[in-house]
Amino acid sequence: MPRYKFTVEYDGTPFVGWQTQKNGLSIQEVMEAAFLALGGEDIRLRGAGRTDSGVHALGQVVHADLSRAWRPDLLREALNAHMRPHPIAVLLAEEVPDTFDARFSAIRRHYLYRLINRRAPLAIDAGRAWHLKRKLNAQAMHDAAQLLLGEHDFSTFRDSQCQAASPVRTLERFDVAQYGEEIQFRLSARSFLHRQVRSMVGSLENVGSGKWQARDMKAALDACDRRRCGPVAPPEGLYLTQVDYGEAVLVEDDGGD
Amino acid sequence: MPRYKFTVEYDGTPFVGWQTQKNGLSIQEVMEAAFLALGGEDIRLRGAGRTDSGVHALGQVVHADLSRAWRPDLLREALNAHMRPHPIAVLLAEEVPDTFDARFSAIRRHYLYRLINRRAPLAIDAGRAWHLKRKLNAQAMHDAAQLLLGEHDFSTFRDSQCQAASPVRTLERFDVAQYGEEIQFRLSARSFLHRQVRSMVGSLENVGSGKWQARDMKAALDACDRRRCGPVAPPEGLYLTQVDYGEAVLVEDDGGD
Repeated sequence: MPRYKFTVEYDGTPFVGWQTQKNGLSIQEVMEAAFLALGGEDIRLRGAGRTDSGVHALGQVVHADLSRAWRPDLLREALNAHMRPHPIAVLLAEEVPDTFDARFSAIRRHYLYRLINRRAPLAIDAGRAWHLKRKLNAQAMHDAAQLLLGEHDFSTFRDSQCQAASPVRTLERFDVAQYGEEIQFRLSARSFLHRQVRSMVGSLENVGSGKWQARDMKAALDACDRRRCGPVAPPEGLYLTQVDYGEAVLVEDDGGD
Repeated sequence: MPRYKFTVEYDGTPFVGWQTQKNGLSIQEVMEAAFLALGGEDIRLRGAGRTDSGVHALGQVVHADLSRAWRPDLLREALNAHMRPHPIAVLLAEEVPDTFDARFSAIRRHYLYRLINRRAPLAIDAGRAWHLKRKLNAQAMHDAAQLLLGEHDFSTFRDSQCQAASPVRTLERFDVAQYGEEIQFRLSARSFLHRQVRSMVGSLENVGSGKWQARDMKAALDACDRRRCGPVAPPEGLYLTQVDYGEAVLVEDDGGD
């Protein structure tokens, strides 16, 4: 039962999210159907991040055990052919040891949140970024974001449906930078709580608009109280960009690709 | 009859092109309907560039004479409200003297062509870039593109339906640069012939894939023969990014915005 790791890009707009649910089509469902079409492989995929409906991925990672060995590049091509015309693309397929787990072996997850700050509506980036008309101060948001770095109880920024055993996480990076009319938030941590990124970005927007000071952000964190969270930012601006794993878990390339 | 200049962004995917045609919805038609809804203004818009079906704009420029004066920012907001949910956005409205003509006063047009060069299909950028799997040499394309700079008879790179009186144009910029898996072509000229950008980018792809040498590109130009053009690049990678006008044509801001 060789195990494969897949790096996946998707436009989350038409899906109910990564994980299969009863109320609509998931990315997981489309991928699992492609494995079935590929050669009768009825498998359950596990993703590194359970992205919500409307959330995008540039580098989601999933793994699967297949009943036979494949050349990784041919496996990638076959999966992509079977997923057409859904906006899901396997960027890379790799053979990994059976100790590799897309979710539990991950040592760091990276997210990008895109916000377009202008009066006019979005034509090209509709569904790809959060559109806000009121002028935001990116530097003030960056400064306030730094107060969230490190190990904290993030209960304030955790969805009430979050199933994680502990609300404690260690935030390694939370940078806010302006590029013309676009403001980009970049976050990294070993793992995040459910809706933590959108809860933190939405709260930071209170700082950017001048409604909150940086100390209000810190007070919200310290309160460990969901009711102190600002409005949750919408899903369309969020991208799971990359998942890191320790070097040791990758199998040596045996010339298959 | 005050005249206004509008800078417009659009996703060209669902439209037959900028210009109104019988076979489907055009950007011009949606904009003209918004003026009609705005206050019974039945006008004909003129655009700086007649973009084809599927071609996008980040900075198309159009002008219109209105029967009454508007505060430019309110005019922009009202037009955007009436164009919803079409992927068209007025970024900027400005009052201009009645000597200003979006098409004839333009002194320079700028285009971007985006190509994504990778094996996997496009999920996030589907409809927003040309997808090519075979590995291209961006430096070779850049070098060959430089041979097209300056004043030439561009008959080879002109659509057979082109209605321009002369095939002579002066190409001021044709840069090709690679950013990760994306190759960007940036072109500037006072004006372009019909499908000139896509004809030149498509021909350059012959150079990038090694099928043509730089001298074949020059020979195709010198032949002044449409049959020597390479395959025309698809519309989804093309963006009209900016149109330049002389300073003198803009009216002084009278505090209306």
